[in-house]
Amino acid sequence: MSKQSLPITPIQACTAAPLVREPLTPAAAVELASVFRALSDPVRLQLLSSIASRAGQEACVCDISAGVEVSQPTISHHLRVLREAGLLESERRASWVYYRIVPEAMARISRILDAHTTGTDAAVPA
Amino acid sequence: MSKQSLPITPIQACTAAPLVREPLTPAAAVELASVFRALSDPVRLQLLSSIASRAGQEACVCDISAGVEVSQPTISHHLRVLREAGLLESERRASWVYYRIVPEAMARISRILDAHTTGTDAAVPA
Repeated sequence: MSKQSLPITPIQACTAAPLVREPLTPAAAVELASVFRALSDPVRLQLLSSIASRAGQEACVCDISAGVEVSQPTISHHLRVLREAGLLESERRASWVYYRIVPEAMARISRILDAHTTGTDAAVPA
Repeated sequence: MSKQSLPITPIQACTAAPLVREPLTPAAAVELASVFRALSDPVRLQLLSSIASRAGQEACVCDISAGVEVSQPTISHHLRVLREAGLLESERRASWVYYRIVPEAMARISRILDAHTTGTDAAVPA
């Protein structure tokens, strides 16, 4: 078989689906990843859930740890991480510190995930 | 002032808000944390967003990496993490591998976050 008669198999191009909206920018991805990192620990999720499960989505620090099998310093550390990620805010009243969910923060992440589910326009994190 | 006349300041108890729903169980928290861990990397979020931003929420592996400044082996690693977390599924067609968002996985996380925002009943992960 001569070189000339070798069959040429064309490389099939992939079918590129068009972009229907702008993907996350690198800066937005860094910011959003830090929030997900705060949520990526089972103890932090339990603490957050413990607060969110109470009326008014607020709990005294003395109640938050019920059912969570870690020491008080560890709980304090995890609450600080959640607060620094903007998911919780705290307030001292008399002798006690109360923690409360920041609904806007949770709703924002939920909206972004929804946009990634339905393909609707996502609210890129500010 | 005699001992007897020292004023006694009662320790004020905290105001415990009642539970309005069951918090996450430890097992559910472990499972959910692993999904958030998959989402806690900026490059993974950019890849996921790149797929979700295309029509049909599906993209060829050759298109996913556009605008993401990492090597192909690193992209492959991150896509595997997202797939193992149940957030993506992949399919080979002809010479190309296509990745697509698993909408149920994203919607489930979004529902859980919504429940933590509004205080409505959360769907505890199965």
